[in-house]
Amino acid sequence: MLFLQGGASLQFSMIPMNLLKSGTIGSYCLTGSWSEKALVEAKKIGETEVASSSKQDNYRYIPSTNDTDWSKDSAYLHITSNNTIYGTQYRHFPETGQLPLIADMSSDILSRSIDVSKFGMIYAGAQKNLGPSGVTVVIMRKDLIAEHSNLPTMLDYSTHAKAHSLYNTPPTLAIYILSLVLEWVKEQGGTKSIAKLNEEKANLLYKTIDQSDGFYQGHATEDSRSYMNVTFTLNNQEKTKTFLSEAKEHGFIGLNGHRSIGGCRASIYNAVPYEHCYQLTEFMKNFQRRDK
Amino acid sequence: MLFLQGGASLQFSMIPMNLLKSGTIGSYCLTGSWSEKALVEAKKIGETEVASSSKQDNYRYIPSTNDTDWSKDSAYLHITSNNTIYGTQYRHFPETGQLPLIADMSSDILSRSIDVSKFGMIYAGAQKNLGPSGVTVVIMRKDLIAEHSNLPTMLDYSTHAKAHSLYNTPPTLAIYILSLVLEWVKEQGGTKSIAKLNEEKANLLYKTIDQSDGFYQGHATEDSRSYMNVTFTLNNQEKTKTFLSEAKEHGFIGLNGHRSIGGCRASIYNAVPYEHCYQLTEFMKNFQRRDK
Repeated sequence: MLFLQGGASLQFSMIPMNLLKSGTIGSYCLTGSWSEKALVEAKKIGETEVASSSKQDNYRYIPSTNDTDWSKDSAYLHITSNNTIYGTQYRHFPETGQLPLIADMSSDILSRSIDVSKFGMIYAGAQKNLGPSGVTVVIMRKDLIAEHSNLPTMLDYSTHAKAHSLYNTPPTLAIYILSLVLEWVKEQGGTKSIAKLNEEKANLLYKTIDQSDGFYQGHATEDSRSYMNVTFTLNNQEKTKTFLSEAKEHGFIGLNGHRSIGGCRASIYNAVPYEHCYQLTEFMKNFQRRDK
Repeated sequence: MLFLQGGASLQFSMIPMNLLKSGTIGSYCLTGSWSEKALVEAKKIGETEVASSSKQDNYRYIPSTNDTDWSKDSAYLHITSNNTIYGTQYRHFPETGQLPLIADMSSDILSRSIDVSKFGMIYAGAQKNLGPSGVTVVIMRKDLIAEHSNLPTMLDYSTHAKAHSLYNTPPTLAIYILSLVLEWVKEQGGTKSIAKLNEEKANLLYKTIDQSDGFYQGHATEDSRSYMNVTFTLNNQEKTKTFLSEAKEHGFIGLNGHRSIGGCRASIYNAVPYEHCYQLTEFMKNFQRRDK
């Protein structure tokens, strides 16, 4: 495990710089704006391909991806495990066999148990479930780390692997706080307990949406729903606006959806307690009742 | 002013990536291992030259640098304003006229008043005088910032300038603490007062060295002495060892010099109070007295 700086956005470039040898192709699954950005940066470095995409359906679902979707010269398959803007999340990861699977888990790491051995690399900016912004965690298969003397030293994974993340002064305070968060997760019973709680939190909200007779409409299709970001709209724009403004008055902050899809988004990361989700569903039900 | 991640070490690469156009040369003043590292990274990106160096004299002094030292195709002159390992510091900066002067001020920013208008760019990792590690401050002349669509987005200064350092999630906690440190500096009377105090602290130590009849020997020549890092040895290695071990017993931690020059180093950044320097000089005098 490496502790790096520069955010997940710098990983978008470091991954192809380190792993995209000449003659190989970086394969990308497009599930939202973060995976699009990862692809844009990779294109600057080497050859790429889109293995799968749900862009044509406004990223409502996680497209299935299998070995017919990437070329035989692929160096890796890149996915974004959770998509904050569209509210979708991989429930099952693509089976890539020998091909390294690389996942940007910035927005759902530590929210559930993961079989790390299935991944060539996992990376995550800390600021959702791990700790404060300013540190990026990279978990990488050792055989994928090679020295690249032509690369800027700071952008070569081998620099940080050899120096145990101490090549330059690391973001010590952020790493310290991250260690406290890890202790907190242990106290909660570990990722299994956290995952169960996250599922319960999310399902409270999804149930409210599903039982609203179309008053609330989820953006993501059922099998791709995120347990971290619940995205929905009301059945007209004016009503959505009223809902958001009244919700704010009741203390529900930051419910506005991202401008690219509009509507509402409840981000319910590990730090959000069950009670807050419950109170939001109560508010949603009351709002619907009053509307009738 | 930009708030970036990746440490000063990432700037070593970003500077030539952004400023070293084809046909131009990056000119470097070598005054220690940090400027050597900056040069190594620049060589990977473009053409470079050594404008001045005191390497042959174990970096005991800041070499003078003037316009006969850089080529007419130079894109910038790069200096390291303070050299932590060797204990040297620029008292006067090279006059570069139209040529942008770029200074790594990681280890002495905010320790004295600086005429920012004389620099094309100033950069500094925060962890000496500004705040916690994890944020790098860049002060850059606006006309030097240009868009480079071929560069990784995160390594293009224009990305961060356009987004006011909010292109990706910045290291918020580190920046907040930095703001508290800036308030503290104001309360101390600003950089002028801080500079006066730093000079007094350093001179206490240098006076003790100079009046020791050679018992203590400074590494840096007088006109290049750093007010941040006071480097010295005793007149034999065994005695230096005893000194360091007794100093540690008396609570003076981290006095060991860097392995590349050995001996002792008192790092007296802004956060070190005058009293600590005074107590160290008392200990030094006592140690010398006992040795006789």
